Amino acid sequence: MTNDKLPSRNENFAEWYNQLVIKAQLADYAPVRGCMVVRPYGWALWENIQQALDKRFKATGHVNAAFPLLIPMSFLEKEKEHVEGFSPELAVVTIGGGERLEEPLVVRPTSETIIGYMYSKWIKSYRDLPVLINQWGNVVRWEMRTKLFLRTLEFYWQEGHTAHATAEEAEQETLQMLDVYRDFAVNEAAVPVIPGFKTESEKFAGAVHSTTIEAMMGDKRALQSGTSHFLGQNFAKAFDIQYLDRNNELQHVWTTSWGLSTRFIGAIIMTHGDDQGLVLPPRLAPTQIVIVPIYRNDEEKSKVLPVVKQVRAELVDHQRALRVHLDTRDEVTPGYKFNDWEMRGIPLRVEIGPKDVANNTVAFARRDMPGKAGKTFIPRDQVAIHAGEILDQIQDSLFNRALEFRNANTHEPKDYAEFQEIVQNGWAYTWFCNRTECEDRIKADTKATARCIPLEQPGGEGKCISCGQTAPVKVYFAKAY
Amino acid sequence: MTNDKLPSRNENFAEWYNQLVIKAQLADYAPVRGCMVVRPYGWALWENIQQALDKRFKATGHVNAAFPLLIPMSFLEKEKEHVEGFSPELAVVTIGGGERLEEPLVVRPTSETIIGYMYSKWIKSYRDLPVLINQWGNVVRWEMRTKLFLRTLEFYWQEGHTAHATAEEAEQETLQMLDVYRDFAVNEAAVPVIPGFKTESEKFAGAVHSTTIEAMMGDKRALQSGTSHFLGQNFAKAFDIQYLDRNNELQHVWTTSWGLSTRFIGAIIMTHGDDQGLVLPPRLAPTQIVIVPIYRNDEEKSKVLPVVKQVRAELVDHQRALRVHLDTRDEVTPGYKFNDWEMRGIPLRVEIGPKDVANNTVAFARRDMPGKAGKTFIPRDQVAIHAGEILDQIQDSLFNRALEFRNANTHEPKDYAEFQEIVQNGWAYTWFCNRTECEDRIKADTKATARCIPLEQPGGEGKCISCGQTAPVKVYFAKAY
Repeated sequence: MTNDKLPSRNENFAEWYNQLVIKAQLADYAPVRGCMVVRPYGWALWENIQQALDKRFKATGHVNAAFPLLIPMSFLEKEKEHVEGFSPELAVVTIGGGERLEEPLVVRPTSETIIGYMYSKWIKSYRDLPVLINQWGNVVRWEMRTKLFLRTLEFYWQEGHTAHATAEEAEQETLQMLDVYRDFAVNEAAVPVIPGFKTESEKFAGAVHSTTIEAMMGDKRALQSGTSHFLGQNFAKAFDIQYLDRNNELQHVWTTSWGLSTRFIGAIIMTHGDDQGLVLPPRLAPTQIVIVPIYRNDEEKSKVLPVVKQVRAELVDHQRALRVHLDTRDEVTPGYKFNDWEMRGIPLRVEIGPKDVANNTVAFARRDMPGKAGKTFIPRDQVAIHAGEILDQIQDSLFNRALEFRNANTHEPKDYAEFQEIVQNGWAYTWFCNRTECEDRIKADTKATARCIPLEQPGGEGKCISCGQTAPVKVYFAKAY
Repeated sequence: MTNDKLPSRNENFAEWYNQLVIKAQLADYAPVRGCMVVRPYGWALWENIQQALDKRFKATGHVNAAFPLLIPMSFLEKEKEHVEGFSPELAVVTIGGGERLEEPLVVRPTSETIIGYMYSKWIKSYRDLPVLINQWGNVVRWEMRTKLFLRTLEFYWQEGHTAHATAEEAEQETLQMLDVYRDFAVNEAAVPVIPGFKTESEKFAGAVHSTTIEAMMGDKRALQSGTSHFLGQNFAKAFDIQYLDRNNELQHVWTTSWGLSTRFIGAIIMTHGDDQGLVLPPRLAPTQIVIVPIYRNDEEKSKVLPVVKQVRAELVDHQRALRVHLDTRDEVTPGYKFNDWEMRGIPLRVEIGPKDVANNTVAFARRDMPGKAGKTFIPRDQVAIHAGEILDQIQDSLFNRALEFRNANTHEPKDYAEFQEIVQNGWAYTWFCNRTECEDRIKADTKATARCIPLEQPGGEGKCISCGQTAPVKVYFAKAY
C-alpha cells in the first residue's frame, strides 16, 4: 500500500497530507466522527516527542501528575471568558452507571478549572509555591472540521499548569516554557519557529496574554505549534487559590498554562515531507536507519546477510545507540522496500549487495536528498562513524532548508495592496497598530490572521499596514491551519 | 501534615490505607465522586511502573498505539457477554458541541470493541499477523464503592490487545503476558504473586478464559493485580476480524487482551507499608535515598553541608545513577524530616552531622528496618558502593518478608468448617471441584471467592472442600478487594 504514489504537494497539498498520514501508517480514521487512531508508527514518533519535552520540563523543575478526565459543568462556568470560549466545543456525559447525573460532567477540553480547584486545596502558604505541574493526557474538543493530527475531536498533549507568588515569576514561567518549546522545535524537530505574543483576538480563553511558536508549513500556511499562557489571577480568583505571604496576608496566586499536542506531528509532516512521503528529523525518528540487503539468489543472499548483520550490530553499538531496522522481507523487491521506507521518512538507508561485499563498501542513501545527490559509498569499517555524522548533517540540512523556505516566502509589504497579495501565498511581516478592528478588517479582506507579535522586535515604531496609524510592533500575518 | 501519625494497621487497616495515601501525597480525592487526582509523588511511582512494564512489552515484540476514548454504544452491544458485564458501569456522552448525539458515545471502560473494529480494517492476510499492540491510557467505569487507587471511576492502565492466526499462539501470548506481570511484580515491586486461571464466574466479560496474578495484602485479603485474557474468536466474530491464510481461505483471528492498572500502586502500599507509612521497593521508588544533614548552628552547618553535597554527588554518579534527594529545609527539624520521609517510604536515609564529619562516617537508616536494627555507620569513602548494596538488600528483604507473610497466612483446611474459619483471616489453599454452584455457596457462606487456579498444580486429584466430589485442581480462596 505504501508503494502507491502520493499526489504531488504542488498539485494538491491537502490531499498529499491526508494520503501520506494513512500510507505512512501514522494514523487512521476512527469510527467516531473526527476522532483518530494513532497507529504504532505515529505513536512511536509521539513517544520520542514526549521524551524530548519531558526531559526539558523536568530539567526546569516540573513534575508530572494526573487530574480527572471528567469535570463538573459548573467548574467551566466559573471563569467567564473560559466558558464562552469552550462551551461550543464540549462533549458532555449526562448518564453514569445507568442513571441520569444530577450535574452533567464535561470531558475535559483543557484542565485549568479542575486543576485550579485542586490547587486551592493544596496551596496554603508561600512555602507551597511555586507549584510546577505538567500532565500528559488526552482532551476532547467538539470540532466541526477535522483533519488527522491537526484538528481532531480527541487529541493527545501535555498541559503544564503552574502557580506562583508574583506576577513577574508567572510571566517569566510563561516565557521560559515558550522557549522550551522553541528549543524543542528547533533542535529536536528541525522546525524553525517564530516565538511571539498572540494578539487579543487570538489569545486563549481565560488568559491575560498568550504566547505561541508559529511555523511555516510546506504550503506556506502557518501552524500554531505550541502555546504558553499567562493567566494572571483570572483562575486564582475564580477558584479561590490563595496563599499566606511572608507577612501572613492572604494573596491570590498567579498562574500559567502551556501545551503542545499531537498537532506537532502535523507540523513535522508538513515542514519536511516531500512528494515521496514523510521525511523525519533523525533526532525524533523512531527508526533512524533502515538496512536493505540486496541479492538475486540464495548464493548472493548467503554472502550478503552476514555482512548486513555485522553492519547492523555496529550501528546499534554506536555510542548513541542508533535506532536501526533491518528489512529482511523476501516477498517484496529492494525497489519496493526503498519506496516503502521513503514513504515512512526513515532518514538514512543503507544498501548492501554482493558488489558492496566484494568491495568492502556499503551504500548510503539520504532521505533528504533523493536520487544520486544523496548517495555515497562508505568503507565498511567506517559505517558507524559515518552514519552518526550523516544523521547530524540530515538534521541540520532539514532545519536549514525549512528556514530558507520560510525566509524566501516571508515578505515585507510596502502597502496594503501588496500585503493582500503576499498573504495569499506566504507570510507578511509588517508594522501593525495592534487594534482588533484592523485585525478584523485584514481577516475579512484576506482570510489571513495575525500569527504572532514576535518577541524579537526591531524597536521604534512604524505605520500600520492597514490603517496607517502609529504602529508599535511588527507582526507576522498569514493564513493558518 | 505528613508528621501526623497514622492509625495502626492492626487497629484499622482501611483507615490506615486511606490516610497513608493522602499523607504520603500519592493521591487526593477529586471533586467528582469516585475520581482521584494522582499527585506528583504517586505519578512518579506510576511512571517507574510504566517504564518497567513498557521495557518488558517491547522486549516481547509489542508496540504502543492510541485508540479513541469515545466508543459508539452499538459497538459494546456486539459481544453479548461483554455488554452484559460492562453496561451497568458506563459513562455516556449524549451531547457534543451543544447538540444531542444521534448515537450516544461511551467513555471507554476497556477497548476490545473499538480495537477489534480497527483490527478488522487492518488485518487482511496471514502476513499481517500477529498484531501485538499495547495502549497506555485512562478508562472510566462507574463504580459505586470507590477507594483511592484500588477502585476509582477513572483509572490509568495499559491494555494490550493482540491478534493471532491460531488459538495456540493466542493462548501462548496470554500466558506470556501473565508471566511478564509476574516477573514485574516479583522483581520490580517485590510483591509475591500467584499466577493462575480465574474461575468461570470471575473471568473477564467476553473472555474464553482469564488469568490473573493474585497478591496477599497486609490485612490478608487478596488483590487481583494484573490480568491476561484469552478471548478466543469472540471479538473476532463480533467485529469480523478475518484474514486470508496460506491456502487463501478466510479465517477469523484469535485475540487476547491484558491489563495492569494504577491499582498496582495499592498493591505496593498494602504489601510493604507499615505503621510509619509507605515503604517503597528501591527499584520503583522515585527517590531511593534521602540525605538529611544535621546541624544546630551556622558553624556546624558550614562543616556539614560541603560533605553532604559531596556524598550526594557520589551517589548520583553511582553506575546505577541512584535517585537521591537532599533535604535542605531549614524550617523543620531533622526529626520532622525523618518522619516525613518515612511516611513517603524512601528506602534509605543518609544522615550526616558534625560527629560524622569528624569521624569520616555517615549514618545509614533502612526504611524496612525502623529503629536501631536498620542503622549502620559507613566510612565516607565507601558510601556509594554500600548504598547500592543496601538498596539491593532492602529490595530482597521486602520480597522475602511479604512471601513469608503470605506463607504464614495461607492454610490448607482439613474440612469445610476449618475452611470457613481460615478465609476469615487468611487464604485457603484447597482442592476444588471448579463448579460455579460450589463457588456460589462458598461466597454466600464466607464472602470469600476463588482467587485463582494456580498454573502450578500438584497433579492428581482430590476431594472438593465444599461438596466432597472429585476435584481436579487446587485453588486459592480468600476475601478480596
